[in-house]
This record gives sequence, structure tokens and C-alpha cells, in this order.
Amino acid sequence: MGKVRVGIAGATGYIGSEMMRLLCTHPGFELAWVTSESSAGKRVAEVFPNLRGYVHQEFCEFKLEMLREVDMVGLCLPHGGAMETMSAIAREYPGVKVVDASGDFRSPVFDKWEAYYKTKHTARELQSRFVYGFTELQRERLRAAQYVANPGCFATAINAVLAPFARHGELVGEITVTGITGSSGSGNKPAQTTHHPERAQNVRAYKVLEHQHVVEVVPFLEGLHKDNDFDLFFVPQSGPFVRGIFVTAFIPLSNQKTMAAYNEVIRDAYGNEPFIHIVKESPELRLVQGTNNIHLAYRAQGDMLVGMAAIDNMVKGGAGQAVQNMNLMTGQEETAGLLHPAGYV
Amino acid sequence: MGKVRVGIAGATGYIGSEMMRLLCTHPGFELAWVTSESSAGKRVAEVFPNLRGYVHQEFCEFKLEMLREVDMVGLCLPHGGAMETMSAIAREYPGVKVVDASGDFRSPVFDKWEAYYKTKHTARELQSRFVYGFTELQRERLRAAQYVANPGCFATAINAVLAPFARHGELVGEITVTGITGSSGSGNKPAQTTHHPERAQNVRAYKVLEHQHVVEVVPFLEGLHKDNDFDLFFVPQSGPFVRGIFVTAFIPLSNQKTMAAYNEVIRDAYGNEPFIHIVKESPELRLVQGTNNIHLAYRAQGDMLVGMAAIDNMVKGGAGQAVQNMNLMTGQEETAGLLHPAGYV
Amino acid sequence: MGKVRVGIAGATGYIGSEMMRLLCTHPGFELAWVTSESSAGKRVAEVFPNLRGYVHQEFCEFKLEMLREVDMVGLCLPHGGAMETMSAIAREYPGVKVVDASGDFRSPVFDKWEAYYKTKHTARELQSRFVYGFTELQRERLRAAQYVANPGCFATAINAVLAPFARHGELVGEITVTGITGSSGSGNKPAQTTHHPERAQNVRAYKVLEHQHVVEVVPFLEGLHKDNDFDLFFVPQSGPFVRGIFVTAFIPLSNQKTMAAYNEVIRDAYGNEPFIHIVKESPELRLVQGTNNIHLAYRAQGDMLVGMAAIDNMVKGGAGQAVQNMNLMTGQEETAGLLHPAGYV
Amino acid sequence: MGKVRVGIAGATGYIGSEMMRLLCTHPGFELAWVTSESSAGKRVAEVFPNLRGYVHQEFCEFKLEMLREVDMVGLCLPHGGAMETMSAIAREYPGVKVVDASGDFRSPVFDKWEAYYKTKHTARELQSRFVYGFTELQRERLRAAQYVANPGCFATAINAVLAPFARHGELVGEITVTGITGSSGSGNKPAQTTHHPERAQNVRAYKVLEHQHVVEVVPFLEGLHKDNDFDLFFVPQSGPFVRGIFVTAFIPLSNQKTMAAYNEVIRDAYGNEPFIHIVKESPELRLVQGTNNIHLAYRAQGDMLVGMAAIDNMVKGGAGQAVQNMNLMTGQEETAGLLHPAGYV
Repeated sequence: MGKVRVGIAGATGYIGSEMMRLLCTHPGFELAWVTSESSAGKRVAEVFPNLRGYVHQEFCEFKLEMLREVDMVGLCLPHGGAMETMSAIAREYPGVKVVDASGDFRSPVFDKWEAYYKTKHTARELQSRFVYGFTELQRERLRAAQYVANPGCFATAINAVLAPFARHGELVGEITVTGITGSSGSGNKPAQTTHHPERAQNVRAYKVLEHQHVVEVVPFLEGLHKDNDFDLFFVPQSGPFVRGIFVTAFIPLSNQKTMAAYNEVIRDAYGNEPFIHIVKESPELRLVQGTNNIHLAYRAQGDMLVGMAAIDNMVKGGAGQAVQNMNLMTGQEETAGLLHPAGYV
Repeated sequence: MGKVRVGIAGATGYIGSEMMRLLCTHPGFELAWVTSESSAGKRVAEVFPNLRGYVHQEFCEFKLEMLREVDMVGLCLPHGGAMETMSAIAREYPGVKVVDASGDFRSPVFDKWEAYYKTKHTARELQSRFVYGFTELQRERLRAAQYVANPGCFATAINAVLAPFARHGELVGEITVTGITGSSGSGNKPAQTTHHPERAQNVRAYKVLEHQHVVEVVPFLEGLHKDNDFDLFFVPQSGPFVRGIFVTAFIPLSNQKTMAAYNEVIRDAYGNEPFIHIVKESPELRLVQGTNNIHLAYRAQGDMLVGMAAIDNMVKGGAGQAVQNMNLMTGQEETAGLLHPAGYV
Repeated sequence: MGKVRVGIAGATGYIGSEMMRLLCTHPGFELAWVTSESSAGKRVAEVFPNLRGYVHQEFCEFKLEMLREVDMVGLCLPHGGAMETMSAIAREYPGVKVVDASGDFRSPVFDKWEAYYKTKHTARELQSRFVYGFTELQRERLRAAQYVANPGCFATAINAVLAPFARHGELVGEITVTGITGSSGSGNKPAQTTHHPERAQNVRAYKVLEHQHVVEVVPFLEGLHKDNDFDLFFVPQSGPFVRGIFVTAFIPLSNQKTMAAYNEVIRDAYGNEPFIHIVKESPELRLVQGTNNIHLAYRAQGDMLVGMAAIDNMVKGGAGQAVQNMNLMTGQEETAGLLHPAGYV
Repeated sequence: MGKVRVGIAGATGYIGSEMMRLLCTHPGFELAWVTSESSAGKRVAEVFPNLRGYVHQEFCEFKLEMLREVDMVGLCLPHGGAMETMSAIAREYPGVKVVDASGDFRSPVFDKWEAYYKTKHTARELQSRFVYGFTELQRERLRAAQYVANPGCFATAINAVLAPFARHGELVGEITVTGITGSSGSGNKPAQTTHHPERAQNVRAYKVLEHQHVVEVVPFLEGLHKDNDFDLFFVPQSGPFVRGIFVTAFIPLSNQKTMAAYNEVIRDAYGNEPFIHIVKESPELRLVQGTNNIHLAYRAQGDMLVGMAAIDNMVKGGAGQAVQNMNLMTGQEETAGLLHPAGYV
């Protein structure tokens, strides 16, 4: 039985290059082609010396007919840039499976989506054909999915913290969340906010109460149980590190329980998950960097529950969760190609 | 008119050494002595090469009779370690002024203090003689104070964000706060959590909902107006940088106003402050590092107000605010010795 | 055919834990036991949460009779601490293979070794039974080796730069070398020089012209050709990063050639190496971190050749090269378990 | 007696902004104007929030007639961009003093200058009117200078290490030097090499044996004594920190002496310098960051002397040394405005 043939569109971005990194040693996938506007014609290993010896191809320009050669596509195009390509794929190559790493198909709430992403959604009719790829709660739908909208990095961490309670309809009132992200989340294009002298010892907030991931988190969590009825206030922050997101959520639980009861809810959700670990003290970025893991911890005081999550924004918050979803969509072992432990430091 | 003679007890700790750094070029103070258990007999510049050419003394062991030589003492002893010394000073040298940088006299709520600090308070009778040194709201009391309890680093940032609303009795309900601190906040003694390989790319939470600064923040803010009635949920975090604290507070304001109205409240509190600046976008650690400044920003959505503060934990959150208070206590210009702009990077 | 059974002695150190990380997903080895004085009785995953799901054992205390259960031992004991254990192993379990990650058996020049390591060598008779494990130049000897002295981290990088010329007896005169290392090179025990506030934005030199790795580099390189006749001046430095060593060597070549001729020598040495890559511009730490690779670059001006190397001190400079050597010693594919590409960031 | 009126041309660059930072609290200078192409019309404090409360002006476009209002100009234009402006100033405002922070007038070796800077020198006739501003060895010439070419950052550190021996004509043979610099050395414009994800844990070399500072160091040091006869091989490197340069030089001294004799030479050169400190162990970046200090240390082995220097590239390697020179040129205390101790962390 042959390997699944996969093409990556937009492979010079950080998520695209991370997807190459994960797929090039994956036992079940074969890289058919990798595209890049800016680096077409160059060998992958020339642009990404880290992949020397692992990826032997050249980058090529994206052409629709290349879809003929693949079973599946990883779309790693800029936000707002996947809609058009996706429409063409759906029309011309209706058999191909797609995991879209952009934000384009993550939310059915188009008016908010358009407000947050500051662009017109031009492929609304396709959105409902996408399964939202927060893997651990969507497993069965993902096995059957043709199209998957891979969650955002902050969204993955926030979903992870809140989902155990969302499943029981316990999200009510005002949920307040801060999240701090590494600089790799800003992609590979230099900018003032990722200029090393200005980032290296800095913390700042941005898009305060206006981050676009809220528009995917809220409908996903609301959809898990009809009793959920909450507002989400989210303050994203930039931190002086490369990889990782640390999220802290304050969850006011109306039907107050003991920490033991909360733990029951959490274990019930994640007790057997290969990539989600409940830790005793605190999640730590360094222990998840480079991995597909989510580390979670919770503490309660009265009716206030604090939940914290740490992920690698490029792996579980990006290419890793995409591969996890690709595994499910193609009938492979869910963890295939993803079991590399982090270093302790 | 001569300079004020000041001694620093515990000057090898980071706050003590920072106090030396600020006082050694201060026009109105003269360092009479600096004490250290571990480095007694060594020249200051040998232990702190950064102070070569600025501080010419040797460290000596603390002896009570040295109080005779000074007008004022900066106590930079470990938390729990100031009570005893303070009792002796008050008894034997009742004329000497003291700024205590430890947590020992910051809170009148002794039972909570003892629970958070995990020690017995042995000088309760002295606590009421201390003015809590959050300078901008205590200015007049500080001018008259003999003893000042210098606020904690996180406490300074949280106070700064919440005080404008506390003054009007608008703090009600559940206030949720995260704060991330640099490694200098842990002091000069190496530990696993400040071991470079384990800290350099890490974020983790600690003392979740149990940080001792809450025990000084709550009574201080409650005391500003009788209508304040709130719970404070605080999650402190460790970040991979050396200096600075970034605090994010979610403030549910019952009597909802426009952002313009909130701004009025904020300007009213801080409009003319030399060290507190309201910034448009977000506070940034790098722009306050090394300075006595607080940068603040606020955003509202519905009845939820988000306030953010950035400070240098060692300066405004430690030795700088102490010197600001010393200036007031001795009739000097409040800003004396503290006007050094940060580098842009 | 079963897996090779291996025990790790001293597995709570950084090199030991890195060896666990590499072996736990290795197709050809099985971890029989892992020892730790300080953590005996604890589950590995409790001490190293990064290994949760990968290593299921508990740490145990080292006892000689445990050698019975293994084919091979990875000794990750402190420098100076392997000699005694090694003597016992050689005496009682003469069939067991050993890779020693300490410095104890890397040099036959005992007087210098004792001067640099500041201790008495108590197992001199065993030293000659050790093959020095700079893999790429010792491959055939390593296949036949029972005992291997795994090179030091700086030594690996310096060897890599100089070996192509040492093979031809071209090392003459005064070779000057600087190397900068990440904080993980100092091990897991907190100290002032790895205290985050003091390390995070710092560079300093240490053991200037007195680093112990010189005592293994010089005899190894001299041994490659009788015409080599050089002095090595080495200045090691501490940098503000976690993983990696960057070495710069100035090599005065007496029989001056063109850069093209030098390149011939270099390609001849490393042209087909899976883990050694010659790069065009400069080696970069980030492109080797987490991998077993060495990136090298050379530039010439007149008779001065500059060679530069980047490695991960914990992998190629430690546990990775050890596993590479274990692979050879046990007849496995040399690259087994070591082919994980680095992230681009 | 009034303050010296100074204008800064190119004040939005890092060196320009650092010059504003140093001059805005300086007792003897008054900022007449600060120019910026990109930010003309904006308040300085808007672009540099760190200078809020310190600099009250707006940026303006540079116009030659503004020279009328000043006694002195700090030119902080890009390399290659000062020549033309300087020609106009010399022609139209022959009485104005200038400190040029660019590389344009640092070297009389025009052919090499043009090769290194990859541009034509269009103001050769002016070069000889510039005094090279390595302050400590040029003090008397600087007091009388009208035009000063402020040394490069690497050049300052290399000069500092080598000058004590250059003064005695002891620089002979092949001197090999590595230097590692912080990211602020690359200026304020984002680029791939200063993109945080790619810089934050990286070390790489660049311009190997081809750095333009060699073209100022060699003639300056040669000029100190006729017996100097050496080649300088310099490998600059980029480090993962913001401020600072650490330089290591290997100096083969022909007339071999004891370390005690070397120390005599060094003390003789720098024994009474306010900004140059000889340290026992190693220079450390963190102890000079933000200051105008140079920390130096030396070690010898046989006829090889190793010298090391640490500076802040933005202060002693840029704006600080410029202000030190401005002080001398205007008859002020050399240290005026520059005595701010570094923090210990």
C-alpha cells in the first residue's frame, strides 16, 4: 500500500516549512510538491538548510493542474489568500483532500470574520464543508472530513483550556483570557515588532479585545453544548521568545464545584489523549516546544477556575495539528510522525 | 545644607544593589554605610563591578549602633527578615527614618499576611506606623512619614492599573489579573526556576491565586473608597527576560461608561504625574526598563475594561520607588536622582 | 533479532536526559535501566515531563550487578566520576560495552589531564582501551571498539574544523581558536554563571587558555599525521543562549593554497558525511540545534585560513555523538535514531 | 556662560536616538534641533516614548541653514551618507564643529575604504581635517579638533585591546580577532538577520575577514608607533543579545615578557582612565551595557597574549564616545553627562 501523496502550497512560510519538517520523516506521507512564489526554482535545502538531507525537491510555482498528482493538499497560504485557491480546487479537483492552515474557513460567523480579518469572504458556500480541526474533540468528524480548517495557534490553546467545560454547557458569564506568544507566530517576514533589538527583552499587548481567533473559538465552543452562554475577552501579547503560546483563562463557573469535581471533568475530556497532558504545577513552554503536546493545569478559588495551557504555536498550534488531522483523514495512526519528545532544555 | 545620610542594610541583594546604583549619583543623599552578611570586608566595586568609580566603600556587617551615623535607612532585607531589625531600630533609634523594601509592613491584614508569607508576624504594633509607599496616591502622607513600606513589584503595577477606579469606589465584582515578571524579581540566588537553560525560552505560572502581593493590594485599594467591593484573582508568571513586569487586569465596571469617560477618570488620576505615562497602544517593557516609569494603557468593550501596566520591577517596583519615597520623606524634589531615560532598545 | 539493551548511569544530568530522549524512540535500543542518585524511586516522566509517554521507568540507584541486564552502558557521570565505576565494570563485567560521556578517558596525556581536570587519574591502565569517539574520523575503530570515550562538546567542534588539515599533516604554528557555548553546557545545577539575570544578555570568557578540552584535541589531531606540529590557543566563552557551540579557528597554513585547493581538502574529508555539512556563508546555531549535525564554513586570506563550526553541544557535542557511536559499536545503521531535522526557527 | 547648542542630523537611527538620550540630560549641551527624513513633523516623544518628558521637540527635515543655530553638529547619517552633507557644512558654515558617527571620515586609506564600503569617497580632501576619535589616545588632538570621526563599534573595542601595545610598536605578525555584537549594531531597520525568530538563539559570522572596521583600525594603530608591522584577521559575529560587543584578540608578541610586564604596559596606557577598567577575570557585556565603559582583561601563555574587551556598541561604540569627544571639543569635563552606572543585571 503506497504512501499518501501530499502537496504543500505556500511552503516558504514558517507553517509551511514546519509542515515540510514534519512530513519529510513521516512514514505515511510522500511530498509530491512544495510551492513558493518567492523561491520557485530553488532547492528546498538551499532556502531551508535545516532540511538538507531530508527534502530533495525544488520549490515550484503553484499551478492548479499539479493537484492531479496528489491525494491531499496542505494549504499554508496567508490569511485571506486561501479562499480563491480553495474555490478552484473544489471546482476542478473535487476528490482532493485539503487541510487549510489559514483562517479562511474556521468560522461560520461571516460578519465577524470579515470585521476581524478586514477582508471580504469570497467563498462562503465552501465554509460549511470544512470540519474545524481541533482534533481531540472532532476526531470522528475528522476521519470523515474532506476539508479541514486547521485551528489558529491562540485558538488551539484557548479551546484546549475551555473545551472540557464547554462540553457540559458550563461556560457562562464573562471569561477573561490572556495569551502570550513567541515571535515565530508573526511569520517569516521581518517587521518592527519582530525586530530583535525591539523584541528581545520586551512584552507588549496587541489587538487587545480584537484578535481574530475569538471568531473561531466562540462558535466552536458554543457549538459543543446548548447551555454555553458566555462572552470571551481576550488580550494577546508578544513575548521575547521564539516558539510557544501560554494562555491563562479565568472561568467563572456558576455551579460551583470542588477542585476534585473539576478534575473529574478535565480527566473525562482528556484522560487518554496522547498529546494532551494535565500537569501538576504549571504548563511550561520549554516542555512543549517542538512537540505536538498541550500541557494544561487548573486551579480553583471559590467559583473562579483558572486554566492554563502551553503549546508550540508552530506545531500543535499549526503544522503539527495539521499533520495530526491529515493522519485521521487518511486512515493512519493519529500520532504517526508526531512522536518526538522535546528536550528538557 | 548637607546631604541626607543614608545606610542600606542588605545591599548585596538585587534591590539593595539597585538602591546603591540610584543613590550613588543622587545629588541629595550620601551613602553612609552598606551592609552585607556574605560580603562584609569586600569593596563594593569588587562585588559589583558596575559600581566601580561610583561607590568607594566596603561592605560591613550590620550593627545597630551604626544607626547613629544616619538620618535614614533603606532596609533591603529578605521578606520576614525586616521585622526584628525594625523593632530594634524603632526602640533604640526612634529618630531615624526607614524605607523598608521587604513585604513585612505592607499589610494590616495579619492573618492573611501570615498565611501568604508563611511566617509569624512579630512586629504587628509597628505596622500602623508605616505608610504604604505607592507614591502617586500617598504623596502627602509620605512627606510626613517616618516609616514607609515600599510596595511589592507586582503590587505596584496592579495598584497603578486599578487605583484610578478605586479612588471612585468603582472596583466591584471579580477582577482578574495576570502578570509576567523578569528573572531579576527572584533575586540574586541561583535556583532551578532561574537556571538559564530552563528559563531562557520559557513561560510558566507560579503561586497561582496565592501570590503574597494580593495581601497588600486589596487593603490598599479598598482603603481608597468605601464603595470598593471586589475579589482579586491574580496569576503571576515567570517570563524569559531580566527586568520588567507586564500586568493585564480585567475590570468589570458596573456603571458602564464610554472609553472617553474612563479616560477622564484615568487622566484625573495621573494627568500630571512625572513617572506615570498613559500610552496609546500598549505598554512595552523595553521602554520602562531601567527607569522609574509606569506605562499604562486601557481598552474597553461593553462593561469590561482592560488595563495594562509595564514597570521595571527593580526600579519603580523596588529601589526606584523607594528613592522616590525617600525624596518626599526628606523634603527633596520627588524626581531627584531618578530622571534617566531608558534606551529605545 | 532483539534490541540492544542499554543502561544509562547518571541519567538526571543534561547529557543523560538527552541520551534518554534520543534512545527512547530509537528503533534498535531498549532502555534497561536509568540511574540517578538524587531521583532514585521517582518516575522518569515526573522528573522530565518532556519524556512523559516515552520513558516509563523509574530512576534507580546504580548497582554494579545491574550490568548483568545490559549489553551496553552509557556513562553520564560527572568528570572525574567515571574512572572508578569504569574500573569496576571492566573488572566484573568484561563483556559489556561502554560509551563514556565524561572526560575521564579522552586523553592519554595524563599529566596535562590531571592538571586541567585538577584530579588524580586512577584508571590509567584502562585509557588505552578506549577509542576516542570523534565518529567521522574513527569509524572503523569504533565499529570494533568495546569502550569509547565520547568527545567533549568544544572538542567536537574544534576537531571538526581542524581535522581535514590534520589528516594531511598541515597543522603547524600557532592556531588560535575562540568558541562560544550555550548555558546547557554547564549542566543542570544552578550557579551564578547560569543565573538567568546574569546570563541572559551577557557574554564572558572563562578558563582562558586553560580549558580541559585542549588536552583531548591536541593528541587526537597530532595523531592523525606525523607532520602536525602546532600550538593551540583556545578561549572559551559563555553566550546568552541555551544550546549550541560556535567555534572560530584561525589556521596559519604554511604551504599556502588557493581556497579551491582548501575546499578540495575539506570535501575529501567530509564530502559524503551524513551529519557534516559544508555551508556557503556561515554556520548558524539555530540550524543545528536539536540535531546531530555539524555545519562548517571556511574562508582564506593569504596564508590564513578561517574555519568555523556550529554544533548542538548536547547532541553532536554529547548524547547524539554517543548514540552515533553506540550505533557503530552494535552493528546498526550509523544514523539510526538520529535523523530529526531542526526547525528553521 | 550658556550651553553649547547642538543639532543632531539623522536622529531616528539607533545611534542618533542614543545621542538624544545622552544629551537630553547633559548639563552642558542644549538640543537645538533633531532631524529625520521619515519622522519630520512628529514629536520626538511620539517616535521614542522613552524620551517623553526629556525631549520636547519635533523632528524636522535637515536644511543647511539650520547650521546657523548651532555650535556643533552630531552627524548620525548612514555610512556613505555623511560625505555630501559634510562637504556642504565645511563650505557654508566653516565655524561649526562636527562629530561624525558614520564611517565616512575614519580612514585615510581611500582605496581600501572604497573597497570595504563599496562606494566612492567624494570628500577625500576633508578627511585629513578629521581627528579619529578614539578618545583615550587622542585626547589632546580632540580638544583642538573641529571635525571628529567617531570610531566604529568593533573598531573601538579592537583599538582598546591593541592600543597599549601599539603605542610601543609591539604589534607584529598575525593578529587574529573575533568579535560578537548585539543586534542593535544593525540599526533600526528590520531585516532577516535581525528577525527575532532567526536571531534569538543564534550565532553566525558575517563579513568574515572583510569587515570595514579593519580599514580604520589598522592605520590608527600603525600610526601610534613606526615599529608596528602586523596583519589583522577579523571575524565578526552576530549574537543573540541587543547591546554589546565582546572582542577577543590573539596577539603574538615577539619580545616575550612576563604577564607582569604586560600588565605594566596596560596600566601605563589606561591606569587613570575614567571609562576604561582592567578587570581580573573576564569582561562581561552586562556590566558595560548602557555605559560608556570599556572593560578589558588579558592573559598570556608563552609569547601569545590574549586580550578581551567588552563595550556597549551604542554608547562607547557610538553615541557615548561621541559625547565624550564633544565634551573635549567644547572645553567641558570629559565625563560630563556620561556617568551613569550600569545595573548589575
